[in-house]
Amino acid sequence: MVKVSVLYPNGEGKTFDMEYYIEKHMPMVQEKIGAACKKADVDQGLSGAEPGSQATYIAMSHLYFDSVETFQNSFGPHAGEIMADIPNFTNTQPVIQISEVKI
Amino acid sequence: MVKVSVLYPNGEGKTFDMEYYIEKHMPMVQEKIGAACKKADVDQGLSGAEPGSQATYIAMSHLYFDSVETFQNSFGPHAGEIMADIPNFTNTQPVIQISEVKI
Repeated sequence: MVKVSVLYPNGEGKTFDMEYYIEKHMPMVQEKIGAACKKADVDQGLSGAEPGSQATYIAMSHLYFDSVETFQNSFGPHAGEIMADIPNFTNTQPVIQISEVKI
Repeated sequence: MVKVSVLYPNGEGKTFDMEYYIEKHMPMVQEKIGAACKKADVDQGLSGAEPGSQATYIAMSHLYFDSVETFQNSFGPHAGEIMADIPNFTNTQPVIQISEVKI
């Protein structure tokens, strides 16, 4: 199983519309990608390790696929449309990482 | 539900002993923290969005708690011992973030 993490960096003036993200963006992504995406997590940054400190990421999502190939084949054809929706909910550019799920 | 993400930055010369992490470190953390930690994920970085590119994080873990207070009360008393184990498996300093689980 692989996890595709989409990490939205926090910072001064950075905004993120969680309502749009959950109600519009993620359903659109899941409709485009289809059953290849087994599960999706969405997190909203609260703080760093210390209470009141700034979270490194304003939001994160993690999408689960059987393999890197399954991700590429399902996401690739829709990448342009999915990435074009990003300015509709945030002014930060996501960091994307593919990981192997160990536990 | 809150998620405590521990992100280990990748980079030149950075190492991470996943076997030690899974077999020694995480069981020690779970024993210290106890039932307050509902679930723990461990990911090993494979790449960025493009195949063959470098993953931003060499490894990530995500620990789930009912609340920020539950995390602080269970982790706090053992923080020193847990953090002191980090050099036994990596030479990178983790970024820690607390998030609210939205989905």
